[in-house]
Amino acid sequence: VATDAVNLRPLGLDFAHRGNTTFKSPVIMDTSKPMGERMAAYVKELQNEIVGALEELEQAEAPSFNGAKFERDAWTRTDGNGGGMSCVLSGGRVFEKAGVMVTVMESKMSPAGVAQMRARGRDFGDIPKDAHVPFFAAGISIVIHPNNPHAPTAHMNYRYFEVRDPKTNKPVAWWFGGGADLTPTFLDANDAAHFHAQLKAPCDRSLGKHAYPALKEWCDEYFYLPHRKETRGVGGIFFDDLDTDSPHAPKGATKEQLFAFVRDAGRAFVPAYAPTVARHMRQPYTAAEKRWQQLRRGRYVEFNLVLDRGTKFGLMTPNARIESILVSLPETARWEYCHTPVAGSPEARILDVLKTPRDWLN
Amino acid sequence: VATDAVNLRPLGLDFAHRGNTTFKSPVIMDTSKPMGERMAAYVKELQNEIVGALEELEQAEAPSFNGAKFERDAWTRTDGNGGGMSCVLSGGRVFEKAGVMVTVMESKMSPAGVAQMRARGRDFGDIPKDAHVPFFAAGISIVIHPNNPHAPTAHMNYRYFEVRDPKTNKPVAWWFGGGADLTPTFLDANDAAHFHAQLKAPCDRSLGKHAYPALKEWCDEYFYLPHRKETRGVGGIFFDDLDTDSPHAPKGATKEQLFAFVRDAGRAFVPAYAPTVARHMRQPYTAAEKRWQQLRRGRYVEFNLVLDRGTKFGLMTPNARIESILVSLPETARWEYCHTPVAGSPEARILDVLKTPRDWLN
Repeated sequence: VATDAVNLRPLGLDFAHRGNTTFKSPVIMDTSKPMGERMAAYVKELQNEIVGALEELEQAEAPSFNGAKFERDAWTRTDGNGGGMSCVLSGGRVFEKAGVMVTVMESKMSPAGVAQMRARGRDFGDIPKDAHVPFFAAGISIVIHPNNPHAPTAHMNYRYFEVRDPKTNKPVAWWFGGGADLTPTFLDANDAAHFHAQLKAPCDRSLGKHAYPALKEWCDEYFYLPHRKETRGVGGIFFDDLDTDSPHAPKGATKEQLFAFVRDAGRAFVPAYAPTVARHMRQPYTAAEKRWQQLRRGRYVEFNLVLDRGTKFGLMTPNARIESILVSLPETARWEYCHTPVAGSPEARILDVLKTPRDWLN
Repeated sequence: VATDAVNLRPLGLDFAHRGNTTFKSPVIMDTSKPMGERMAAYVKELQNEIVGALEELEQAEAPSFNGAKFERDAWTRTDGNGGGMSCVLSGGRVFEKAGVMVTVMESKMSPAGVAQMRARGRDFGDIPKDAHVPFFAAGISIVIHPNNPHAPTAHMNYRYFEVRDPKTNKPVAWWFGGGADLTPTFLDANDAAHFHAQLKAPCDRSLGKHAYPALKEWCDEYFYLPHRKETRGVGGIFFDDLDTDSPHAPKGATKEQLFAFVRDAGRAFVPAYAPTVARHMRQPYTAAEKRWQQLRRGRYVEFNLVLDRGTKFGLMTPNARIESILVSLPETARWEYCHTPVAGSPEARILDVLKTPRDWLN
């Protein structure tokens, strides 16, 4: 796992070791424990690691005032069935806004919710159609918007979902979902290639070499704004319904193997993203470049409010914690009527890439 | 129709006469012409009047450079069945962004679109379920975002819709829809009362005295953000499906009478809104007040992208003119995690009103 050592050493930063596979919490690797408990421990540990790395970047940028810190905000659902820890940094030197959110919950899905999952192909055996079905979910969700228009926005999310029998409360179905993607304001092909290479490694390692191209394409399809005819950014990986029967799981894959993939992919985020931020956070920029960033932030808002499944689900969930759902929105955004970049300009160059997704590794 | 003469006279502005009922285009009052043609002529004339009034405000604020002007942008649909005229002002002294849009089109609805209208109670006689149904629509749609946080945002829209028999192309159903509403950043009860009084007058005149309270309530219900548990602003009037059978049309009402209401309501917009802008456009404000405006602009974006029917319909329509649909978004917006105004502050005062809509006229 190579990072851009040349540019990072002067800042005293080295993110390569963050991709390792040892953990402080012994539960994570304890195969005798239920997966829900292990995933919950994993996302909490990963949250701390990522918050730490982002605070290091803040500190490196502004050693004199020690950088901005995350506010840590534990919350519980009003119905008492779970909660989470929201870590949010606002108004930093490096980051305009960064949210690193963990949720762990047990609750019940409405029959309509179950019907939707069945409609996309999930099999819940003989659970009746009118049942309120218990489920467990544990996940981490991250959106990071840096100040500098040359430093890209990043998003990452990994989650474990378990559906339980309404009578016995035993798991009847489970799957992993998630991914990570990069949204630059200006094109830097090295950043995109580095991000993709870091995410490809865990795919290759645990799922085999067919997985990355499939999950990369899924990402380009998911983060697509039909009304703009452009993708949100330069992509990454995206997957859902990942269980041992998934077409993206290798033949004979075990649940343990899929969890290993998710652990690796989550751990790959810091080495995939932090070096890029470090490289760009002190880059000079013009007012026009900042304005273009604000316009791209507007597109980010459009995607999240109009198209993102998780956001839409959250907005329709009664008593959902709206601040946790909308923390993904940038602090500032902009819309101009009929804004069209000059042909051949850096603004037009990134638009070309968003209209025709590229293969970054070949 | 009283306006705030005291404050407007020094600016050389007088908007009261804009509420009159004579028109330049003779087609508008020519009862021998089809309603579609008359409505199209009306919205075009109204667009010119409103653009003129807003340019007067720009000029009054900055006489030395003559104020910002609207860009007029005629467009046609890619399928050739209609088009419109978009008048947009950006970066003015008074207005951050103002869009005054007219659309006139003839096209065909998909069977799914027809089914949706039937589901909300519209009767299309014996038009078959699988038919692509021709329709005509003419409308004006306005969103105005001033710079000064003490000057409220306003929205207005009036439209005429006609469904035609697929075989004979004769009208089988028609209705009017629309309304106007005010979205202040800070509460000014006089502004809200003035706006509501100006809109109540055409309701009383053409629909009877039961109409305004009903259309006012409909407005509060429509412009409601369930995920925030607040309305978008201080309301106004809202209506749809207004034909001679509508519960909001007086008994024995004619189509001519409903058109008179729509004409009056459209003409009421300038006297309802322009004096309020004139009163606030030079009011001093702090950086904190501007920031609160930006946060409220964020809510405006949330409403329009997540909830507004017209915007959602537009985003899902293939080959729709996306710039005309999203011109309603403010130029700038802001989101902060868990922002909570201090109790008793002006910020908290407007939130109270948004959480519990008020009767402004009693």
